[in-house]
Amino acid sequence: MRAALDAARAAAAAGEVPVGAVVVRGGEVIAVAANAPRTLCDPTAHAEILALRAAATALARDRLEDCDLWVTLEPCAMCAGAIAHARIARLYYGADDMKGGAVEHGPRFFAQPTCHHRPELFAGIGATEAAALLRAFFAARR
Amino acid sequence: MRAALDAARAAAAAGEVPVGAVVVRGGEVIAVAANAPRTLCDPTAHAEILALRAAATALARDRLEDCDLWVTLEPCAMCAGAIAHARIARLYYGADDMKGGAVEHGPRFFAQPTCHHRPELFAGIGATEAAALLRAFFAARR
Repeated sequence: MRAALDAARAAAAAGEVPVGAVVVRGGEVIAVAANAPRTLCDPTAHAEILALRAAATALARDRLEDCDLWVTLEPCAMCAGAIAHARIARLYYGADDMKGGAVEHGPRFFAQPTCHHRPELFAGIGATEAAALLRAFFAARR
Repeated sequence: MRAALDAARAAAAAGEVPVGAVVVRGGEVIAVAANAPRTLCDPTAHAEILALRAAATALARDRLEDCDLWVTLEPCAMCAGAIAHARIARLYYGADDMKGGAVEHGPRFFAQPTCHHRPELFAGIGATEAAALLRAFFAARR
């Protein structure tokens, strides 16, 4: 989660909402990404999506069933869906997202009967620091 | 929807589940994409995601509020989330997807109170042809 928090700080420095994500396989970091929709002109460029895509490219396959994803914020519906498509084994996330989160809030994607893959879920990892980064980012823009 | 169905046929020819998507702005086609997760080694490479990304690149911005998306199959949670992030104005889709769909099935993403953008929805456009393509694809693989 340390690397994901560093990526979140890099996102903030680039003027993006500070969220970072890391894909890990057997203790090895396969991909690290920072949230970048504005920088990349890509509405799908959340940290999770970029990390999953980079990991899939690195491993030359579209399923990452032996990988875990670490992300500083509760994933949205788009990212939760991508995590299921990628068959991620374990999802570790930081701060809750009551507005846009789709794991414990809103559509609660992984709890839906139609969800075809549920990773093991670990919430609240590094949540205090992740939430502080988000609060500072939005406070500076008000 | 004609162009989206052609893209779905191209996906099938490449061994991918036949789904196609088109982004249109003011009657002009901005992007066309075929489903390609295996070909691209990218779990996020659904037709909708690829079309949204290509359109955002073409227009050099991450919000497509003046664009419509046409897709041959009911979007999944990942794609519905991406459609909301992109601020797509109107969503036209073909066949229902009772297993993976997230518009009228499963998480019913656009009906969630936490959904921050709902496009106008038009279902069942070209549904017969879109569903026939999917049935033929899966029948050939059984």
